[in-house]
Amino acid sequence: MRRFVVIGQTALASGDFLLDDVAGTSGRLDVLLRCIRASLLSSHGLRRDVVVYLVLLGGPLAPRTVRIDGATAKFIRPDERMLSVMFQKVLSERPQPGRVHPDTGEGFVDVRSGIAIASGGLEAVLADLERAALYVLDEGGSDIRSEPALGGPDEAFFLGDHSGFGEKTRERLVALGARWISVGPVSLHADDSITIVNNELDRRSG
Amino acid sequence: MRRFVVIGQTALASGDFLLDDVAGTSGRLDVLLRCIRASLLSSHGLRRDVVVYLVLLGGPLAPRTVRIDGATAKFIRPDERMLSVMFQKVLSERPQPGRVHPDTGEGFVDVRSGIAIASGGLEAVLADLERAALYVLDEGGSDIRSEPALGGPDEAFFLGDHSGFGEKTRERLVALGARWISVGPVSLHADDSITIVNNELDRRSG
Repeated sequence: MRRFVVIGQTALASGDFLLDDVAGTSGRLDVLLRCIRASLLSSHGLRRDVVVYLVLLGGPLAPRTVRIDGATAKFIRPDERMLSVMFQKVLSERPQPGRVHPDTGEGFVDVRSGIAIASGGLEAVLADLERAALYVLDEGGSDIRSEPALGGPDEAFFLGDHSGFGEKTRERLVALGARWISVGPVSLHADDSITIVNNELDRRSG
Repeated sequence: MRRFVVIGQTALASGDFLLDDVAGTSGRLDVLLRCIRASLLSSHGLRRDVVVYLVLLGGPLAPRTVRIDGATAKFIRPDERMLSVMFQKVLSERPQPGRVHPDTGEGFVDVRSGIAIASGGLEAVLADLERAALYVLDEGGSDIRSEPALGGPDEAFFLGDHSGFGEKTRERLVALGARWISVGPVSLHADDSITIVNNELDRRSG
């Protein structure tokens, strides 16, 4: 499985943003929404082997994380407007801190087919990843094309938003032994970096 | 110079679309708008060596082409909402068929810094490209990573929208000797293909 984890340091963890100005009212949730398209959609529809986690660290309801699983998600549109509408609905469901998932007991709770929310940030994601190999996308990392192990059965790629990673996130990923990799010589938006990772993995698996 | 030419077979050549539903009311202009971000923006701002042409073949005012030049463009935002607002303004300027550019005599007419419109489609673009090497992004092309000549001083990359190219466009590009290239084994959205071309060229020039 291919997993992308995007850390939104200011992205609002509630639906209290304006659809007509998502970029200006949501702590740059728009950056994360564009990562949904880049992660999950090809010309032929949904990538069934991809899961994307959006970690929302902004606002009074933070931290919360939305997980979208390409295997079971439906109606994922490429345009930001429809992604914003979907996300606002998902985030506006009343948070239920005491709610327990019947199967897993904790962590992510399904809110619709293929979409789940956890009342937590990085730690909730790490618990969900289990034994995935961890990679951090970063300008200073080694070239993705030269990574020998890339293309394994379960891999998770961490990306920062427009302002990068917070120091604590960075330290936690270092401690976990994540590999630092770079997509190329020019620093790119998170969604572009995801596109290049998908392309590299498509090439290795194809 | 790096140039991207996106052919919107149904994309509306006027501003008569709804900002709250660009994907549903503009002949999928949203597909082309996303190509602006992918072509022109890196983490550090505008790519000054990139020009993008959006060929609009839908609606009664078609064909028209909007050209955005990274060398002189201003206020290019990554989010689709702001790109839609900008584009609606640009397209809503009254078409002036008889207007002649003081320098070139015909072709593209500046409507604001770095943004120009031509009353024409593919032929207006081809006249503007002059001697650029032509490439067509297509699933059936040869692998971009194996293209020996790629990375020259002036190159233009043609992309279709969600429904590909029209037959006439395809034939014209064949006749001009364009090279057919592919970005990888999975068919991608136009904006993802542009991201991968930019990355390959960044690698060759860096």
